[in-house]
Amino acid sequence: MTETATVRRSRITPEREAELYTAVLDLLREVGYDALTMDAVAARTRSSKATLYRQWGGKAELVAKAMRFSKPGGFADVDTGSLRGDLHALVGRADDCVIEQNSALMRGLFMVVHTNPELLQAFREFLIDPEMAEFRRMVQRAVDRGEVPADSPAIEYVVHMMLGAFVTRTLLDELPPTQEFALSYIDAVILPALGVRTH
Amino acid sequence: MTETATVRRSRITPEREAELYTAVLDLLREVGYDALTMDAVAARTRSSKATLYRQWGGKAELVAKAMRFSKPGGFADVDTGSLRGDLHALVGRADDCVIEQNSALMRGLFMVVHTNPELLQAFREFLIDPEMAEFRRMVQRAVDRGEVPADSPAIEYVVHMMLGAFVTRTLLDELPPTQEFALSYIDAVILPALGVRTH
Repeated sequence: MTETATVRRSRITPEREAELYTAVLDLLREVGYDALTMDAVAARTRSSKATLYRQWGGKAELVAKAMRFSKPGGFADVDTGSLRGDLHALVGRADDCVIEQNSALMRGLFMVVHTNPELLQAFREFLIDPEMAEFRRMVQRAVDRGEVPADSPAIEYVVHMMLGAFVTRTLLDELPPTQEFALSYIDAVILPALGVRTH
Repeated sequence: MTETATVRRSRITPEREAELYTAVLDLLREVGYDALTMDAVAARTRSSKATLYRQWGGKAELVAKAMRFSKPGGFADVDTGSLRGDLHALVGRADDCVIEQNSALMRGLFMVVHTNPELLQAFREFLIDPEMAEFRRMVQRAVDRGEVPADSPAIEYVVHMMLGAFVTRTLLDELPPTQEFALSYIDAVILPALGVRTH
C-alpha cells in the first residue's frame, strides 16, 4: 500500500466506511452501475463529493471496494488448521440469502466490466488481486502443513475453481450458488484437485 | 428428438446449414445479438424468412444452434481410449485463433442471456444440455474402463470445471483461454478431481 493510500484511508472511521459501502451497494441494486452517480452516493450518505473523491478516487474504485466489503467476513481471521476447515469456514460465513444477493449483484457487474476498462481495472486492483493473494496465503499454509503437495499443479487454479463454480452454477443448473453447493464443490473438486486427502 | 424436429431438419442439406450458421456467426460479430434480425440473416444467405422460421423457429434457436456449430469438431468421433486423450483431443481441434473468437462471441452472448429468458432457454436446450450429455457419455466411458471411480463426486461437475476455466481465465488473468491453458487445466484440475491417475 502506498503512503498516499494510507493517508487517504486514515481520514474516515471503519464504521463510516461501512455505512458508505452499504449505501453504494443499495444504490447498485436500485439503479445499476451505469446510472449510479457520485452525487447520489453523496446525497444518500450526507457526504460531500469532494470527500468521496478524496477517499476513493472515483466511482469504479468505490464500487470495487464496496463489493469487496460486501463479502461477509473475509479471510483475516480464518485459520482453522486444515484447508478443508478454512474453505468451509469461508463459505459458512455467508447465509444463502446474502450469497444470492451478492451473486446477482456480481453477475450484473460482470456485464459492465466486460465493456468498461476502468471498472475492470478497479475490480482487478481492489477485489480480484487481494482475494487471489488471500487464497494463496491460505493454500500456502496447507502446503506448509504438508496437506497439499508443494508441486500440486492445481495450486495456481484455486481461484479459477472457486469463481468458476459460482459463475457456472447459475448458468448450467439455473440454481443459485448456495452454501450447500459451494461445500459440495469444495469437497468434490477443489480438495481432490489439490491432492488433499479428505477420507 | 421429436418427429417434428426430424422433419424440419430434413429439409436442408448439411452444407446449406453450415453456410447459414456461418452467416449468423458473422452477423453476431458485426452487430451483436440485439441488433441481429431475421431479415438480415435472410438477406445475407439469400433465403426467405419463412424458411428460416420453419427451420429454426426463431432468432434465439438459430443463434444457439449456430454457437453449437461454431465449436469445432464436436464430440461425435472422439474416442481415444482414455479420458485424458479424449479431453485433449477435444481441445486440440480448435486452434487458438478460433478459441479466442468463439470465446469473445460467447462472452458477449452471456451478457444477453442474463437479461433474455428466451435466449437462455434456447442456449440450455440446444447448446448446454446437448454438451453436458456428451461430456457425461465421455466420462461414463472412462468409468466403464475403470479410469474414473463410479462414485467420484466430481463427475457431476465436469462441465462446471470446463466452462468455469474458460470464463474465469479472461477475468482473472486477462488472458485468452488458449489451448495450452485448457490442456494445463485439464491435467491440473479436472483429471485429479475425477480421481484419474495421470502419472
